[in-house]
Amino acid sequence: MSFSTSDIFAAAAGLAIALGASSAAQAQSAPLSAQESDPAVMGWMQGFPPPVDKLITQPDANYFSFPKLRWSVCHLREFLPTEEISRGLGAPVPLDYPSPAEFADLRARIDALAFTPIDGTDQMTWQDSLYANYTDGMLILHRGKVVYERYFGCLEEDGKHAIMSMTKSITGLLGEILVAEGTLDDRALVRDIIPDIGDSAFATATVRQVMDMTTGVQYSEDYSDPNADIWVYSRAASPLPKPEGYDGPDGYWEYLQQVKPDGNHGDAFHYKTINSDMLGWIISRVTGKSVTDLASERLWRRMGAEQDAYQTVDGKGVPFAGGGVTAGLRDLGRLGLLMLNEGVSNGQRLFPAAVVDKIRTGGDPSKFAGFPTIPNGSYTSQWWVFHNDHGAFAARGVHGQTIYVDPTAEMVLVRLSSYPRAQNGFIDPTSLPAYQAVAEFLMTRE
Amino acid sequence: MSFSTSDIFAAAAGLAIALGASSAAQAQSAPLSAQESDPAVMGWMQGFPPPVDKLITQPDANYFSFPKLRWSVCHLREFLPTEEISRGLGAPVPLDYPSPAEFADLRARIDALAFTPIDGTDQMTWQDSLYANYTDGMLILHRGKVVYERYFGCLEEDGKHAIMSMTKSITGLLGEILVAEGTLDDRALVRDIIPDIGDSAFATATVRQVMDMTTGVQYSEDYSDPNADIWVYSRAASPLPKPEGYDGPDGYWEYLQQVKPDGNHGDAFHYKTINSDMLGWIISRVTGKSVTDLASERLWRRMGAEQDAYQTVDGKGVPFAGGGVTAGLRDLGRLGLLMLNEGVSNGQRLFPAAVVDKIRTGGDPSKFAGFPTIPNGSYTSQWWVFHNDHGAFAARGVHGQTIYVDPTAEMVLVRLSSYPRAQNGFIDPTSLPAYQAVAEFLMTRE
Repeated sequence: MSFSTSDIFAAAAGLAIALGASSAAQAQSAPLSAQESDPAVMGWMQGFPPPVDKLITQPDANYFSFPKLRWSVCHLREFLPTEEISRGLGAPVPLDYPSPAEFADLRARIDALAFTPIDGTDQMTWQDSLYANYTDGMLILHRGKVVYERYFGCLEEDGKHAIMSMTKSITGLLGEILVAEGTLDDRALVRDIIPDIGDSAFATATVRQVMDMTTGVQYSEDYSDPNADIWVYSRAASPLPKPEGYDGPDGYWEYLQQVKPDGNHGDAFHYKTINSDMLGWIISRVTGKSVTDLASERLWRRMGAEQDAYQTVDGKGVPFAGGGVTAGLRDLGRLGLLMLNEGVSNGQRLFPAAVVDKIRTGGDPSKFAGFPTIPNGSYTSQWWVFHNDHGAFAARGVHGQTIYVDPTAEMVLVRLSSYPRAQNGFIDPTSLPAYQAVAEFLMTRE
Repeated sequence: MSFSTSDIFAAAAGLAIALGASSAAQAQSAPLSAQESDPAVMGWMQGFPPPVDKLITQPDANYFSFPKLRWSVCHLREFLPTEEISRGLGAPVPLDYPSPAEFADLRARIDALAFTPIDGTDQMTWQDSLYANYTDGMLILHRGKVVYERYFGCLEEDGKHAIMSMTKSITGLLGEILVAEGTLDDRALVRDIIPDIGDSAFATATVRQVMDMTTGVQYSEDYSDPNADIWVYSRAASPLPKPEGYDGPDGYWEYLQQVKPDGNHGDAFHYKTINSDMLGWIISRVTGKSVTDLASERLWRRMGAEQDAYQTVDGKGVPFAGGGVTAGLRDLGRLGLLMLNEGVSNGQRLFPAAVVDKIRTGGDPSKFAGFPTIPNGSYTSQWWVFHNDHGAFAARGVHGQTIYVDPTAEMVLVRLSSYPRAQNGFIDPTSLPAYQAVAEFLMTRE
């Protein structure tokens, strides 16, 4: 009895896609619409048991590809081992809402807002943009109150959704808190904190370069090349038993120990997930805590969260600091409020204001390129900074996840979605101008 | 690249042990004491990363054997895919406590209680029995108030612990609720509810026989026989990809479709886990809900639970109705109170009193044998009934798990533990008389 090569590649593919890859197998044109691909319409996993063609199982390489993706984004723990990010045992702190009449009125007015997509195509309404972007959950907070909240697809108010690379922003926030509090020196070299990083290209990078993803490290994502780093990383990360004869790295951290150099540290921003996992390791080494426990202690237990979150782990129990978190929509709204309010949540300061100030100030836009929908952007502490008129910054994850913070409009917007393609470059044209339009509406509403 | 036979057997072994097997590899004599085997003392999973000899990983066949068991009982989700049993979004309903002074006094008095073990050895104190039984959590409620609560080993008040076969009692309770409400006819044959059960020996059993485990179905647990049913079941249940060439059943329900007969339905009680999974399937078929969702809807969301629970799943997302639940100590106390109070929780009736009446009345003791520590017992609706002077009944799980309800003493006792050996027959001699002693103390205390 033995597992086939295709099995392990299938499992690895599932993880690679979870890492934020666009699958070669993924539909590239004319996919089903949001309404057509709604998991209830598709019938995924309905019935006891579901019909064979409606089953979504982990060994299936496509379990995280569209249209199965539309179900799987709400069910990641049913495929993979996970660790809890505990909210603790107390009562949640409910979010503030306007009166039901005002709330309904706001929804109608926001749904009708029109905006022009980035690519200059015809105007689109806010409501149409929700479907265009395969939205599963949309929450907007203005001056601390919920002004808009809707659920679609697999998500309900008491459900949870994979946040993909927004995980990086939680890791980055924890890192920045440690820097502000003096626990972590962002000028230190990785090898000074983790001597066992060995000859890895990360050894000579500073913590700041890791946080800002300006390291010079090799990490190829050519999906047609079976030896591409993304596949090696996926096989290392897989919590499944390693195949017989496997002699590659086992787990995120063993992978990081053998990363090769590519360019010079500090020269430019390169969006490479391995930096986030490197930061996760640094955080755990200096605090003696897993990133899940630290996120619980510093964020989830203290911001009045109403649900536990969770994070996928590798075969050694190391949380995926670059993409593994699943959480509830309103708890992500609480996290966004914490950023908008510069570290204050429900009247309590959770971390120094300098943390948010550092993040929203952003990095050096001259080192930032390759994201046409964010022409003047930068990436700092694992957060995206738009350097726009409103000083907006965001956590972003593939398939359309965002926590968008607009300090000028005093607005936090959280979108969870399951857009067929991974890259936000496809999703931004009908998203970023919509966010700007709703921000302007909120600033000027009577 | 391929997985070896030993890998898949290792994974299956982990699950078999989770099912309640005693491993052949398990220490049979002079194991480490509770204090020596404390996970913190052992150093399991400490460090970032932990030393190689302190790692506990899923492919390791012994991840659920003593002494690793003492860590793993609190971390099952880090090894296996799971589904949530949601508590919902509201505020928990705190348990009632006496004043701190009274609470401390009660603890001192209970710790000092002496009792004689079943086997007639020397007297033992209550506190000594906690260590003798590798207790991880002990909660005692009397007349609705917490009178004793302690945590050891891997468990803390905001942690969770595998409850093993106590899962069966949750499944059985859900089944009994459906019977009392008229949704499920316990006289119906399994094949009338699930025609696709096919030629399985379960087809001609009644729902009641499944609930009470009086079916005549083959299920061998001879661990030295690689073709024993327990191994076939474990391989079917494993959420790992099936090995190449595997042609056995895939998932709990495919296994149940091919069970062979062994004796006549109704003749006698045989403790076989497959009955619980059969009941889980029946429950899902008649309600259109997974047992996790139903446990959430009928129990966890309505009893003021303070933590979500979770349940392991097979490769098709089917929860392990015979043993997969992990939950918090105090929430299990809430479940015990619900049983003591005949379906009433925090002043609200959650299900008809007839449900608890049916369970605690018990089954036919003449059909019950093979459990020397429960000489006059019976098993009904997946609950153990002692038929003793106090009318006590219990949920029980291997390695020492129990929810013990004593209606005469108005006492609920929950113990979570990680005793080196699986069978409660080894644990009862220093447990059941201790429970009786504390019940008598509580009934007569000033």
